[in-house]
Amino acid sequence: MQIQYWFELFGAAFFAISGALSATEKANIDWFGVTFIAFVTALGGGSLRDVLLGSYPIVWIKDVNFVYAILVGVIVARLFYNPLLQLRKTFFLFDTLGIALFTVVGTSKAISLGIGNINAAAMGMFTAVFGGVIRDILTNEIPIIFRKEIYATACFTGALTYVGLYHLNVDFNVNFAISGGVIILIRILAVVNNWQLPKFIRK
Amino acid sequence: MQIQYWFELFGAAFFAISGALSATEKANIDWFGVTFIAFVTALGGGSLRDVLLGSYPIVWIKDVNFVYAILVGVIVARLFYNPLLQLRKTFFLFDTLGIALFTVVGTSKAISLGIGNINAAAMGMFTAVFGGVIRDILTNEIPIIFRKEIYATACFTGALTYVGLYHLNVDFNVNFAISGGVIILIRILAVVNNWQLPKFIRK
Amino acid sequence: MQIQYWFELFGAAFFAISGALSATEKANIDWFGVTFIAFVTALGGGSLRDVLLGSYPIVWIKDVNFVYAILVGVIVARLFYNPLLQLRKTFFLFDTLGIALFTVVGTSKAISLGIGNINAAAMGMFTAVFGGVIRDILTNEIPIIFRKEIYATACFTGALTYVGLYHLNVDFNVNFAISGGVIILIRILAVVNNWQLPKFIRK
Repeated sequence: MQIQYWFELFGAAFFAISGALSATEKANIDWFGVTFIAFVTALGGGSLRDVLLGSYPIVWIKDVNFVYAILVGVIVARLFYNPLLQLRKTFFLFDTLGIALFTVVGTSKAISLGIGNINAAAMGMFTAVFGGVIRDILTNEIPIIFRKEIYATACFTGALTYVGLYHLNVDFNVNFAISGGVIILIRILAVVNNWQLPKFIRK
Repeated sequence: MQIQYWFELFGAAFFAISGALSATEKANIDWFGVTFIAFVTALGGGSLRDVLLGSYPIVWIKDVNFVYAILVGVIVARLFYNPLLQLRKTFFLFDTLGIALFTVVGTSKAISLGIGNINAAAMGMFTAVFGGVIRDILTNEIPIIFRKEIYATACFTGALTYVGLYHLNVDFNVNFAISGGVIILIRILAVVNNWQLPKFIRK
Repeated sequence: MQIQYWFELFGAAFFAISGALSATEKANIDWFGVTFIAFVTALGGGSLRDVLLGSYPIVWIKDVNFVYAILVGVIVARLFYNPLLQLRKTFFLFDTLGIALFTVVGTSKAISLGIGNINAAAMGMFTAVFGGVIRDILTNEIPIIFRKEIYATACFTGALTYVGLYHLNVDFNVNFAISGGVIILIRILAVVNNWQLPKFIRK
């Protein structure tokens, strides 16, 4: 549980960096707007998960450390904005670390609340991707899950991996490393090789 | 209760078909995206209702049958895509069946939780229309409730009908048939006759 | 508590007026659409707060007076549409009264539920601004919190003021007047002087 807590804090900070960098691509966003988007990106997915599961109190509301983690992320994004901009892949890196951490934590939490396998995996995926979806809705972008490269599918695969290994009684830390690694690996391979899922209808 | 359960499963499948067909009108949507939109369309309204009512567990999270119903809907939409496309009115049909089923089930659930008449009717309407609203927000469409023909108003009228007959002690099945029929009838008449509500301001 | 209740009812009516006026700026919106947007604007922020806090029943669902307050707001907006249009600043007035009332009520509620200072202030701000954010998402506008003038920042400052005075054991009514006044003052000064927050990145 202790380790899971640190994973969530680090995931929140990574998402805050990714959210702040993404928000600044929009012109004329002020400090408040960037911080707001960083919060939504970092906490939206976990909040939706907890609300859907009826798991109260929602983790960040009772624990101000999440606020601090996100503020640290925003400040890091500002201080290192130019190097991060030159290394565009960095944005992708932080986002990928964020979804890997949040998918595993979210799936694990849903299982501990007695949710079935498929829905627990769906909850893990929601935790990871829905902050980004809300961010994209707020900034009028096409939601990230509908963009080309494999994204939510990587999370869902990693979540299913976690569920499977959980039922094989694999230790949480080992399971976390493998399942999170699956997500990072799929995501990197998908971007490098421009992997795409088949279209529903070929037009 | 048993019948209500089947109504909800069928409503979810109908909404999944309507959501999948609606999603494919957007170019370049892959299998994952279509399935995701089908889920949101089918489960978004009921989830919002349960979250607002604080009615946990949310029905689909503890019951994987909803996931199966939606997957069946998506597969049906794919297999019969071309015939469904030629019969464009079918999309309208599935959506209308979905809103009729969900309005009655949602209103009935709110009443059983002790919600007052007007708000119970509003909850029934939310159950029916909000999945489509979230779908439209995700795909950057103008939400269906703001489009021209009478839509949410049909649901609200049917929900009020259900509330009225409920207080007259009409049997659930009879009430369901009448209230659902009212929704289907208004919706068909509205589309056929291009009925519109009066504008708030005449410009 | 009694006074807080009237504040919430009046805040809801003010937001309904502001929502109805804002909705009519969009062409071809009918009575249902305007009423729906008025409801969302008035109740969206408080609903999100209560859902995030797990504070059930959500205030308006068990209390139909909120529905009446909003309907009154919509009818007032229709009856006095032309004078209100000529006095465009009035729209700004109703919105400002709404956010001032809702910020204080929301912060106060979060504190009474044992939420920490910063998150309680955030909840107060959410209560005030999120109805407008949802309204803007539904009508495809850029969300109000990302527009130029200081808006959510005024609410957050007022909420922090409330939290500070609360810990100094200032009487609720006095605290309300001061904290609400801070919001109204900042908002008026920001619009009059075209105050803006510094950009995250100067481009």
